Amino acid sequence: MASIARYLPILDWGRRYDRDTFSDDLVAAVIVTIMLIPQSLAYALLAGMPPEAGLYASIVPILLYAVFGTSRALAVGPVAVVSLMTAAALGQIAEQGTMGYAAAALTLAGLSGAMLLVMGLFRLGFLANFLSHPVIAGFITASGIIIAVSQLRHILGIGGGGHTLIELVEGLVTHLPETNIATLAIGISATGFLFWVRKGLKPLLRRLGLGPRLAEIGAKAGPVAAVLVTTLAVWGFDLESSGVAIVGDVPQSLPPLTFPALSTTLLGQLFLPALLISVIGFVESISVAQTLAAKKRERVDPDQELIGLGAANLGAAFTGGFPVTGGFSRSVVNFDAGARTPAAGALTAVGLAIAALALTPLIYFLPKATLAATIIVAVLSLVDFGVLRRSWTYSKPDFIAVATTIGITLALGVELGVSSGVAISILLYLFKTSRPHVAEVGRIAGTEHFRNIHRHKVETDPRIVTLRIDESLYFANARFLEDHILDRVTRDKAVRHVILQCSAVNEIDMSALESLEAINERLREMGVKLHLSEVKGPVMDRLKRSHLLDELSGKVFLSQHGAVMALSAIPETDADTSGTEPSG
Amino acid sequence: MASIARYLPILDWGRRYDRDTFSDDLVAAVIVTIMLIPQSLAYALLAGMPPEAGLYASIVPILLYAVFGTSRALAVGPVAVVSLMTAAALGQIAEQGTMGYAAAALTLAGLSGAMLLVMGLFRLGFLANFLSHPVIAGFITASGIIIAVSQLRHILGIGGGGHTLIELVEGLVTHLPETNIATLAIGISATGFLFWVRKGLKPLLRRLGLGPRLAEIGAKAGPVAAVLVTTLAVWGFDLESSGVAIVGDVPQSLPPLTFPALSTTLLGQLFLPALLISVIGFVESISVAQTLAAKKRERVDPDQELIGLGAANLGAAFTGGFPVTGGFSRSVVNFDAGARTPAAGALTAVGLAIAALALTPLIYFLPKATLAATIIVAVLSLVDFGVLRRSWTYSKPDFIAVATTIGITLALGVELGVSSGVAISILLYLFKTSRPHVAEVGRIAGTEHFRNIHRHKVETDPRIVTLRIDESLYFANARFLEDHILDRVTRDKAVRHVILQCSAVNEIDMSALESLEAINERLREMGVKLHLSEVKGPVMDRLKRSHLLDELSGKVFLSQHGAVMALSAIPETDADTSGTEPSG
Repeated sequence: MASIARYLPILDWGRRYDRDTFSDDLVAAVIVTIMLIPQSLAYALLAGMPPEAGLYASIVPILLYAVFGTSRALAVGPVAVVSLMTAAALGQIAEQGTMGYAAAALTLAGLSGAMLLVMGLFRLGFLANFLSHPVIAGFITASGIIIAVSQLRHILGIGGGGHTLIELVEGLVTHLPETNIATLAIGISATGFLFWVRKGLKPLLRRLGLGPRLAEIGAKAGPVAAVLVTTLAVWGFDLESSGVAIVGDVPQSLPPLTFPALSTTLLGQLFLPALLISVIGFVESISVAQTLAAKKRERVDPDQELIGLGAANLGAAFTGGFPVTGGFSRSVVNFDAGARTPAAGALTAVGLAIAALALTPLIYFLPKATLAATIIVAVLSLVDFGVLRRSWTYSKPDFIAVATTIGITLALGVELGVSSGVAISILLYLFKTSRPHVAEVGRIAGTEHFRNIHRHKVETDPRIVTLRIDESLYFANARFLEDHILDRVTRDKAVRHVILQCSAVNEIDMSALESLEAINERLREMGVKLHLSEVKGPVMDRLKRSHLLDELSGKVFLSQHGAVMALSAIPETDADTSGTEPSG
Repeated sequence: MASIARYLPILDWGRRYDRDTFSDDLVAAVIVTIMLIPQSLAYALLAGMPPEAGLYASIVPILLYAVFGTSRALAVGPVAVVSLMTAAALGQIAEQGTMGYAAAALTLAGLSGAMLLVMGLFRLGFLANFLSHPVIAGFITASGIIIAVSQLRHILGIGGGGHTLIELVEGLVTHLPETNIATLAIGISATGFLFWVRKGLKPLLRRLGLGPRLAEIGAKAGPVAAVLVTTLAVWGFDLESSGVAIVGDVPQSLPPLTFPALSTTLLGQLFLPALLISVIGFVESISVAQTLAAKKRERVDPDQELIGLGAANLGAAFTGGFPVTGGFSRSVVNFDAGARTPAAGALTAVGLAIAALALTPLIYFLPKATLAATIIVAVLSLVDFGVLRRSWTYSKPDFIAVATTIGITLALGVELGVSSGVAISILLYLFKTSRPHVAEVGRIAGTEHFRNIHRHKVETDPRIVTLRIDESLYFANARFLEDHILDRVTRDKAVRHVILQCSAVNEIDMSALESLEAINERLREMGVKLHLSEVKGPVMDRLKRSHLLDELSGKVFLSQHGAVMALSAIPETDADTSGTEPSG
């Protein structure tokens, strides 16, 4: 039972569900449903999908997340960045609006769902750790810009398109003369109104006497107002005949049962995009979930979250949707509106299902420009170039990672952008550890303390070189170690003994072991003995399973002081004649 | 002057060149030339190139390396693994024997040369560090097997081919009925003879009265004897008419002037193969060069070696060759034969140029089976499955890396094999550091020492949790830290203070900084204060450039003991009421 409950968190909170919790959840669900209707339509537009797909992608996925997810407040569905990545991935496969495009979207959601599920079952959530915070921040900022610019053509009522900033700007410039004045009027008013809503509506509602929480929630309904007013305007003034692009016919239907295409070619083409969408979606979702859980001193389980998101995406694949994840704005609204359990999500799904069945005829005249305005206003809040300044001040490698991510995402697209960001953070980290701090040490007179000869006044013996390595030894710094030691000895023909002080070495991997063997061998050929001192217990245990200790030309000393005492006592001639024989 | 000499090592040794050095170099050159003639022809066959390309690839590259390289004994030219990788890369572009294939070989050499040159000029030699020793060992072993199996068809005189073990074995099985008996007889005799030469010829020559060094060198001339005898056999018994494949017409010519094709499509297709060939070639070459240099207490400069190898490959690209690198066997022979400067290489080049001009008619009847035998005997010495056992005993992550590399190289080919080897070593390393050791510590009664509560009898205060983190904090373990701390506090509602003891933290990158900010914020929401103790100087300097210290709900303490003293003194109520106000 305990093990089933681990994979089905619903068994935990479901048992304690009561009428009070239900009424709180219901209120939250109504508020979130109102907010999600325009948002779902808008993100479907961004992903290049028909509008109803946005509603479908919110219904079954929310239900499945409610069963498998651990966050009490997370609301899953289409979100901006993942929708952009979906459009970029599918754009390489098929034309927007074709059957192939929608079918590939199902496959992308299915593949991504399967990957998340597998990562969850094998507890591979740690893979998301390889996305550093600055890379994520840079990626989200660059994606926000690309999304905003990609929506300008809907505001202007022109053609064009593309997946990189350059393509998008080229498209805008080429098609600018086609600008439709009626569309532009709607687009600019909607955008202006929505920007004002973000800043001005809440204070206005407060002045009108609403409580702070109600005013907060009322302000979130701004997009619904924009949708209503512009839809009525298009209908009332017959703006469709003036060339205003509208949503048009949307089928009145519950989510259909669909099956993703599973050709190996398609799976191969979508593998990398699906992986990136999974990881980015998971990172976005888990940060939101953890932030909200912490506010109530609750915890979310990252591996179970993977399973929840995996189930949600598989749900999207079989019900006419496209890739989904936990969204920031919808989850915060859900939380603020008082959602107490995942049942709030289930009730939201019911609300959206009613909308899909009953309300779709009402959005026939909804102008696409309004949806574009909704997207632009939402994503511009994601854009934060401050991360460039903060990382520049704090850490140059982080700055390089964030600048690369932003630059490549804007210039070459989202997939290359996030991949290069990950690659460059890992390379910079490995580069740092590949040049560990190595100090040549000597004894502080009259003590048993050994310190850096460049910082302290210390005693040394010209025949003995002691090097203290301040890092674990592994493949990336193995060659550095060889170079460093052999350089030191080659420069100074008086040296007869090299001692490696290993007090800070937590690990020696096989590459480093072989480097130590090579160092030992080459020093032996030069008539120099290699000694180790202060090797930690676990490291020593492992070395005993290798041949290094048998072949070592010198000895292993428990203490650095003991090593220097013993070696200084050896007369010069002895060191020379026994140079080629192992003594350890 | 000093700066020119840095890039032209020839100015250093050239100035001190004298007659004695010359005569030593000349002897070495003659010996190496004799050995290189069959080897160059054989590796051309392996790379899918015409035989003369093997000679061309050894002439100008050797000369250029003599000018730019730092190793006194390294002999560059075609080598087994790089020739295999060349065949694998070009096989995706064109059919063997076509003009397109040879042209692509020039482009591959040129691209690889340019990459090596750029890596050298920008001092990027450290990139080779990302190839761990077990990955290299696994890759070389798997490549050796693939090479040996790929040559069996020449021994049998049948068709077939392929770049993975499966393709090769399939080809052998399909074509087995076509086996040519005369070819098989030559192939088996040559292989048997060459195996015997490796073990038996040197003792025989010693018994015949030769000195140890001369016997050693005589044994290296075994392949020449095999070439002579089998060529005469084909000529004398007219085995060509019995279907024995021979080398045939080879133009009598100095290396021609050629220009690599530079279409962007071709460069794009060859980019990754060229990078892998450059890195693998560099790693192979630098290990040989360092081993030989160490024997004379000399040093090679890795970044200058990149320039030397880059120049050699560019030379190959413009003189009808294919990718080259420093070879193990030829360099050892060169060294053992007494080569003292890179001039020995230049003299070898002259010898090979004479061979290309004068001797090529003599190899018309040379059977391909003999060349295949030369290759098989040479590469089987590279095969070492012992690395699997050694890594299994010593370190499981290293074992996983080596097993993956061998498995993928055999099953899916050299490029995927080496790439996955690199990827998996890096992932395993990051995985290890992504779960650092975190100890909860308490005070040993009556002292100021704090130790792990699970290993020692210590005093703790239920309101205070102290965690000591034994690793630098960076992106891969930032989320782990968040999870670990919040888990600990969520489980235990009595906690009011969390102290992070940072004595072992050498770095906090921006991701870890943001995690600390998030931890601080979430703990604040739970009414728990976050404190730091024993932060190192450089880490503290950097933290002062961030907002963490301004926003920290607790304080930064110089010592862990001071922290516990100060916090234990606060009465319970105070900790509660001031829970949401920063005090640091």
